[in-house]
Amino acid sequence: MVTAELLQIAQQARQAAQQLVTLDTAAKNQALAAMIQALEARQAEILQANQTDMERSQQAGLPAALLQRLKLSADKLASNIKGVQDVMHLPDPVGQRQLHRELDEGLVLERVTCPLGVIGVVFEARPEAVIQISALALKSGNAVILKGGQEATESCRVLVQAIQEGLKQTQVPPTAVQLLTTRAEIQQLLELDQYVNLLIPRGSNAFVRYIQEHSRIPVLGHADGICHLYVDRQVDIPQAIAIAVDSKTQYPAACNAIETLLVHQAIAPEFLPPCAAALVAKGVKLRGDAATQKIIPVAPATEDDWRTEYLDLILSIRVVDSLEAAIAHINTYGSGHTDAIATTDPQAAAQFMAQVDSAGVYHNCSTRFADGFRYGFGAEVGISTQRLPPRGPVGLEGLVTYKYRLWGHGQVVATYSGPQAKPFTHRDLPL
Amino acid sequence: MVTAELLQIAQQARQAAQQLVTLDTAAKNQALAAMIQALEARQAEILQANQTDMERSQQAGLPAALLQRLKLSADKLASNIKGVQDVMHLPDPVGQRQLHRELDEGLVLERVTCPLGVIGVVFEARPEAVIQISALALKSGNAVILKGGQEATESCRVLVQAIQEGLKQTQVPPTAVQLLTTRAEIQQLLELDQYVNLLIPRGSNAFVRYIQEHSRIPVLGHADGICHLYVDRQVDIPQAIAIAVDSKTQYPAACNAIETLLVHQAIAPEFLPPCAAALVAKGVKLRGDAATQKIIPVAPATEDDWRTEYLDLILSIRVVDSLEAAIAHINTYGSGHTDAIATTDPQAAAQFMAQVDSAGVYHNCSTRFADGFRYGFGAEVGISTQRLPPRGPVGLEGLVTYKYRLWGHGQVVATYSGPQAKPFTHRDLPL
Repeated sequence: MVTAELLQIAQQARQAAQQLVTLDTAAKNQALAAMIQALEARQAEILQANQTDMERSQQAGLPAALLQRLKLSADKLASNIKGVQDVMHLPDPVGQRQLHRELDEGLVLERVTCPLGVIGVVFEARPEAVIQISALALKSGNAVILKGGQEATESCRVLVQAIQEGLKQTQVPPTAVQLLTTRAEIQQLLELDQYVNLLIPRGSNAFVRYIQEHSRIPVLGHADGICHLYVDRQVDIPQAIAIAVDSKTQYPAACNAIETLLVHQAIAPEFLPPCAAALVAKGVKLRGDAATQKIIPVAPATEDDWRTEYLDLILSIRVVDSLEAAIAHINTYGSGHTDAIATTDPQAAAQFMAQVDSAGVYHNCSTRFADGFRYGFGAEVGISTQRLPPRGPVGLEGLVTYKYRLWGHGQVVATYSGPQAKPFTHRDLPL
Repeated sequence: MVTAELLQIAQQARQAAQQLVTLDTAAKNQALAAMIQALEARQAEILQANQTDMERSQQAGLPAALLQRLKLSADKLASNIKGVQDVMHLPDPVGQRQLHRELDEGLVLERVTCPLGVIGVVFEARPEAVIQISALALKSGNAVILKGGQEATESCRVLVQAIQEGLKQTQVPPTAVQLLTTRAEIQQLLELDQYVNLLIPRGSNAFVRYIQEHSRIPVLGHADGICHLYVDRQVDIPQAIAIAVDSKTQYPAACNAIETLLVHQAIAPEFLPPCAAALVAKGVKLRGDAATQKIIPVAPATEDDWRTEYLDLILSIRVVDSLEAAIAHINTYGSGHTDAIATTDPQAAAQFMAQVDSAGVYHNCSTRFADGFRYGFGAEVGISTQRLPPRGPVGLEGLVTYKYRLWGHGQVVATYSGPQAKPFTHRDLPL
């Protein structure tokens, strides 16, 4: 059941989106500039609100890692305000002409990118996300409905107030940025498929999966990141070890860290001992199948391990008897996120990169490169493991769609039909 | 509950897809050529099977229009076999490089189109769809699971047998084209989200909506096509009448025909009488709101009319007091398919085309142009009214997705992190 209050929020957001769709790049950048000014002006108030959230959460016994995420220092705030400036300088994702074609004289077809409309974003108790998400949404011409983690309620409230205050002096209506404050509203948000065009959930795997399974609104994001490195029989061993260590340990809590190492049986006796030593030296706990256990001392890995995203310094190892077996393992147990092959055999690399069904397929480099900033997108709104586009790390382009515009001078289809049909010219014009 | 038999079909299709993903354009075109040969060789058998379907359906009292759709004449068969040749000559949608970027020296990112995998297509008792869909699926490197209307069972069976026979001599496994034969299997197909990557339902609105609401598999297609023509206050009246007549009557059963005509109140007294006369002369039955009824003799239109896709020679008419009211009507009652404005005012056209939330927004031309062939796509796999891409008429590109490939020489993320971080070059390379 959607409450009248939430319905009003959604309707206001949709109306704001209708205005946003008419704004040019300059007007949207002015709104971002006003947002920066307002955030800077209210800095003390924002930090004070965050202090209130911190004190309440400390008393409630929130774990230290989550407190650290909740904390908004003056530095963190300044760096996130600076981030809005970076978004200002990104190219406008709206209004890009992707197709320009004369169908006949005076009848011209265009395919042009346009905003999605209203985006719902549910995120953890990480207040600076309000700033980042609002900037990306407005830059791409979308209204946004935000719901942050409960612990960050005060911080989010003051941040959104500041942003709305800033927008008042611009062409972007303040109702373009809306905040939900209660957990019950998340469930209602999922039902607003009449008003919300895209959901971006951030948080635990279970939470993201819940959202994916309980809404008809398209979801951008991914639940699991079960990434693999496969070490082929023909391989540069020191290089493969460096890739394994980086892919596992450079930031083990990231979705693009590997969870399983697959090793060709022909190279396993030579590769596994030095690789295991390098991983153990970095604090990694190893688990392995029977064949691995014969080569190095590891805890046994079970079927469950192949399906587990540890998000921790744990790695499961499996010895496979062929490249095909490695590909089959990845396509069976993987999550379609990012998978790498280490090999000096170009044919094996080509087969792996064609047949592995993942958003990212890598040759001789770390899976940790799977990231919108590293790809040069300037921003990342999420990483999608769905098969259909947008797939993989998604930049601002994930917040837009396109429409076809056909410009005529009275043309009708009867002219182009039947035995006397006039042919179309179908002549591509410069973009 | 998915039966063992259907599970095997799905698994075989997925395995076939794994092979298809490695084939180049020549190998796929060879498969299409073999398909043509096999269909030509079995022509008599195919027509005989269709005769059986026709006789059974005649006895069962199938309406004449559906019998006509079921009938596969020698001419229709030949023209559809010729259609396979046309698909052979289309550019390969797979392997298109959309992004090519050096992240750093020796670390190169590509975004390349690739097949979706397995496509499930459920269609009416129209046997030639087997030929069209199989050709489009194989050209785009996908395996396909087909389910045709019950009345066409024999025709579909013999057509699929011929295609599979033809594929035996090619690199495409015959299991790449699979046929379901019972209605119960449709329900099971909807549950195969582990194996099927895209569903394309063809048929009644209710059927398509059922598929959209009962499967987690992405659906390409649309339920309703509630299209509008809005006649603005400043307009070339004879031109607008010609557009209204074509949009409504050129093929009223099409999804891109208009169902509602919106007219600005300032022009309605002048525009409606001659427009109504032209429509009535073509056999159109008119319904109108109170304001319309004051100007021309029409049956009353109710709220239900604004939400109805007649698919017939019926048109509802509403007088609106502004451009904004027309846009609001379309965004409220429309289906996001195709909507047109007739006006000589460029500003009104621009506002309409920005603010109407539809896949196609047209200025001074018939909505009937919304079609993959008319857009010059060479083929059409469906028209999507979803907000996210692919949107509007979808050609072969709707059957592919993309993946990111990253080619390295041992690069690890640690090198690009922390205080000593090496910067990325992010240099775009020629596509």
